[in-house]
Amino acid sequence: MAERPLLGQLIDALKCLPGVGPKSAQRMAFHLLERDREGGRKLARVLDEAMERVGHCNMCRTLTEAELCRLCSNPKRDPATLCVVETPADVMAVEQAAGYRGLYFVLNGRLSPIDGVGPRELGLDLLERRLADGKVEEVILATNTTVEGEATAHYISEMAHASKVRVTRIAYGIPLGGELGYVDGGTLSHAIAGRREM
Amino acid sequence: MAERPLLGQLIDALKCLPGVGPKSAQRMAFHLLERDREGGRKLARVLDEAMERVGHCNMCRTLTEAELCRLCSNPKRDPATLCVVETPADVMAVEQAAGYRGLYFVLNGRLSPIDGVGPRELGLDLLERRLADGKVEEVILATNTTVEGEATAHYISEMAHASKVRVTRIAYGIPLGGELGYVDGGTLSHAIAGRREM
Repeated sequence: MAERPLLGQLIDALKCLPGVGPKSAQRMAFHLLERDREGGRKLARVLDEAMERVGHCNMCRTLTEAELCRLCSNPKRDPATLCVVETPADVMAVEQAAGYRGLYFVLNGRLSPIDGVGPRELGLDLLERRLADGKVEEVILATNTTVEGEATAHYISEMAHASKVRVTRIAYGIPLGGELGYVDGGTLSHAIAGRREM
Repeated sequence: MAERPLLGQLIDALKCLPGVGPKSAQRMAFHLLERDREGGRKLARVLDEAMERVGHCNMCRTLTEAELCRLCSNPKRDPATLCVVETPADVMAVEQAAGYRGLYFVLNGRLSPIDGVGPRELGLDLLERRLADGKVEEVILATNTTVEGEATAHYISEMAHASKVRVTRIAYGIPLGGELGYVDGGTLSHAIAGRREM
């Protein structure tokens, strides 16, 4: 039997993208073929290169094609502050919010013994050595407020205490512009428990 | 200055897909890099090949990498019936609905003098020759009910009449399962104008 038509193959391949079903995949394929071949070629090239070359930063474990990512190799960043996040997307979110000038450590997950994710899988041995070398003065825990995220934060805070490094957790509460009536109960109790003198 | 990080390039390149903004592009890039490199590699390969090789069928003008598409080269299809549609996506829609056994002619557009789209751009010279050779007995017009689609249908029907070929237009009316109260006025007037004896 002859090979499947390329158009069908392209529609199928596009379905590997998250949130893309058969109809969107079809629309994307037709759009690229009929209106944007240059964009399609460029996407193919960059995609192939990224799949082959992007790995993890040796220092913070975020996604990068270099040995050290742009942040870890930037001498203007403050090496005394280390923000621990779950994913490279979280790094991007904090960077886009601006204001933070320290470095990061990316867990690429959270402690979840039931899924076989222990301290090793999160690179916590690497983090432990980094805390031990004395350059880091404060660890800011920015893991999520899920059960696993909290457990991970707790585990890392013990590690940091053992190395005599100050540990903080980012504030959880009402988002700016949020209204009490529209905020979920969990957030509201966090906000009340975390109240500050004024 | 060093080249931009591949991750950023990938996020940018993904934005060429229709309906994909910065946030979705970021989510797609992370998904492929963290969870589906194989899918990403395959997409890159198929995309590159499709952008280079897919062209138009010499007979019906739909998208294909072959000289003749699968439908035009299928001896089981009925060459006496020709369905004229605006886009390759329309061919796919009619095929998926099943039941139609004839061939297609794809305009890849609609008459729109203001945009410089005339009969030549739609390949109507090709269609005219095909109608003249006597094999086609019926042309089914399935262009959209926009002003341009109707004008295109009208133009082709004159062409077909000149070649003494029967011309029909697909029925426009209430969709199956549709309720009168929820159907737009245009469709409703079409449905009433197109009423049939029972």
